Amino acid sequence: MQFFKVKTVEETFTLIDKHVKKIGVTEKRPLESALGCIIAEDITAREDVPGFDRSTVDGYAVRAEDTFGSSESMPGFLTVAGEVRMGEAASFPVGFGEAVYVPTGGMLPPGANSVIMIEHCEEIAGLLNTYKQVAPGENVIRAGEDIREGELLLSEGTRLRPQEIGALASLGITHVRVYRSLKAGYLSSGDEIVPFDTPELKIGQIRDINYLTIAGLAKDWGIDVIYGGIVPDDYEEFRLKAFELYNQVDCLILSGGSSVGAKDYTTEVIQSLGDPGVYVHGISVKPGKPTILAMAGEKPVIGLPGHPASAMIIFRLFGERILKNLQGENPEHRPDRIFARITKNIPSAPGRSDYIRVRLYEKDGEWWADPIIGKSGLITTLVKSGGIVEIISEKEGIAQGEYVPVIATR
Amino acid sequence: MQFFKVKTVEETFTLIDKHVKKIGVTEKRPLESALGCIIAEDITAREDVPGFDRSTVDGYAVRAEDTFGSSESMPGFLTVAGEVRMGEAASFPVGFGEAVYVPTGGMLPPGANSVIMIEHCEEIAGLLNTYKQVAPGENVIRAGEDIREGELLLSEGTRLRPQEIGALASLGITHVRVYRSLKAGYLSSGDEIVPFDTPELKIGQIRDINYLTIAGLAKDWGIDVIYGGIVPDDYEEFRLKAFELYNQVDCLILSGGSSVGAKDYTTEVIQSLGDPGVYVHGISVKPGKPTILAMAGEKPVIGLPGHPASAMIIFRLFGERILKNLQGENPEHRPDRIFARITKNIPSAPGRSDYIRVRLYEKDGEWWADPIIGKSGLITTLVKSGGIVEIISEKEGIAQGEYVPVIATR
Repeated sequence: MQFFKVKTVEETFTLIDKHVKKIGVTEKRPLESALGCIIAEDITAREDVPGFDRSTVDGYAVRAEDTFGSSESMPGFLTVAGEVRMGEAASFPVGFGEAVYVPTGGMLPPGANSVIMIEHCEEIAGLLNTYKQVAPGENVIRAGEDIREGELLLSEGTRLRPQEIGALASLGITHVRVYRSLKAGYLSSGDEIVPFDTPELKIGQIRDINYLTIAGLAKDWGIDVIYGGIVPDDYEEFRLKAFELYNQVDCLILSGGSSVGAKDYTTEVIQSLGDPGVYVHGISVKPGKPTILAMAGEKPVIGLPGHPASAMIIFRLFGERILKNLQGENPEHRPDRIFARITKNIPSAPGRSDYIRVRLYEKDGEWWADPIIGKSGLITTLVKSGGIVEIISEKEGIAQGEYVPVIATR
Repeated sequence: MQFFKVKTVEETFTLIDKHVKKIGVTEKRPLESALGCIIAEDITAREDVPGFDRSTVDGYAVRAEDTFGSSESMPGFLTVAGEVRMGEAASFPVGFGEAVYVPTGGMLPPGANSVIMIEHCEEIAGLLNTYKQVAPGENVIRAGEDIREGELLLSEGTRLRPQEIGALASLGITHVRVYRSLKAGYLSSGDEIVPFDTPELKIGQIRDINYLTIAGLAKDWGIDVIYGGIVPDDYEEFRLKAFELYNQVDCLILSGGSSVGAKDYTTEVIQSLGDPGVYVHGISVKPGKPTILAMAGEKPVIGLPGHPASAMIIFRLFGERILKNLQGENPEHRPDRIFARITKNIPSAPGRSDYIRVRLYEKDGEWWADPIIGKSGLITTLVKSGGIVEIISEKEGIAQGEYVPVIATR
């Protein structure tokens, strides 16, 4: 058996970024089904949004100067020259000393530069009493103020949230080029592993629950996971099944069998799938040390530790990075960590990154993180947790009351 | 027209909780398709997890006492009495001075109380040299240590994250009773509103983009939204269409027409759907003041403001609370807010809650929130933002450097 030097978490991320590049195959999608997709092109606005000056309130379009000095005690007076209807062009201009009724969202007539809210004026027999002065531009959205024609609205690699979909729709864009969605494959190995729906366990047997947790996480990132089943500890059977699944997917996830045991075929199976092969074999992290990362051709392969909680934490850390690189998402600065204060001292070995499950609660406008006691294999430690505190490898622990980064596990 | 007193954000939440209760209709789902659902029953463990004492490492099962005093310079010696295979019961016990090989996840033989890692010992011709002492319980997960038979694992009202699905699977539970998923309906109104895929706008027209943003947010909470289309400013047509959609869904969302304008039929239409009718008409919030909340029979009705960004923020605040109450989710303390320091002074009217869109960035282990300048109607302010800072109604603004709660808009 080949041995590898254990990598730090930081080294592992660098190696992932070096090895895992976007697939880059694109497809055109209607906007309604592009939510969560990664956009594969820069989007430049081809028109102004809004296309015309709009009122943001119900009121009267005026020349702001005509209201200067108006107050409750000294109202101004303007002549009401007409009304703009919703969805119709404002045809007649607003002259000096004139006002034109305009509803919220209605078009500002030429000549007007602001709108006085109906709450601040009163129309009496064609005469408008103004009880407040307005500034030029007040209660108006100018043409192009939201999006200017020719402006770069979205750049390639952006994940489309509801607001990006909305912004695209406001430009009349109905279809968008995105990176095609990914398929991952999941295969369990181990003589002791039985299907999760096995009603009665024989002694020594373990239900295969990692597929459900891993597929659940991947679904959040927009990735479907194909279940490849369970293979026994037999090299040839494992290799054949892994190869079969590898051919159907963009990324292969293997669970179990990655510790340095006598029946560990995982590394050999992964190496058999193609070059360049394994680039990380063991990470200085707790939990999850026996993690394997590889590239077989252009496809990433992830060998997860078997313990359910370890598998989830490792997949949340490294699986997400791998799959998002593969999807083509631009690594933007998004708040995937929050900061909280830790309730207890926690020691940690320097050179190793520790991930501590915590309960989160708010007190006096701050988040506090209370460590959950329990071994790394226990799935209930994750059920009880709202987040995972990261102790980076340079640190020798954290002190009570210290601010720590927390990965929220909602 | 009937007028209502504007409510504060805090009053609005209290009224929502008073009016909107869970539907309470349940269905049995296979575990694979229960992710994100709300569980409708308490789950009590019917067996121990794990079902037997397991090793968490590759090593030798021993009586911890037999290793006491072992070190690199003064190794201990034990007799290797056999091997436990994965997935098989450990048949022979470990006696005094004995060790039995056990792989990661393998069953601990009777008599043993700990496992010494293979890295810390060496087997030579049936004799095990131990280079380290182990404590009782070290490298072992006890039967029932993860989940104890009879223990309450999950309580009714819990949203099923991947880890909850995993915990259920580890108990051999294949189906789970959840609250049925909800359907919402969305209807736009306004003479100026045209379908979002209208290629060329006539002057005064606005594309209907709110359906896409609102449906996108709802999807995140596991709720499908039916699109009811666009109705013109005609009371009878609006009422008929709203009633038709109301009959198909669990919650009706109306967009536009909720400001106090001449063509505002929204309130009348909502009142026509059934009692008790409108309970909030106007919220002291910026943006989004002209928001309407109602109950027509058992079904909530939400009248959103028309501006795209206002509609999204209002729906994120109040729509989420309404729909999660309706789904039956237990209002647990989840980190849906993070805390960040604000980069600028921001004034705010007391008595009004302000929601300021911000760019988020990390500096020195803290999040900073940098306000985005732009009027509330602008969808691009949300595209540029990573979060929304909340200034609660009691505050008269926030000072540069102050810690503020931020709703992340990922």
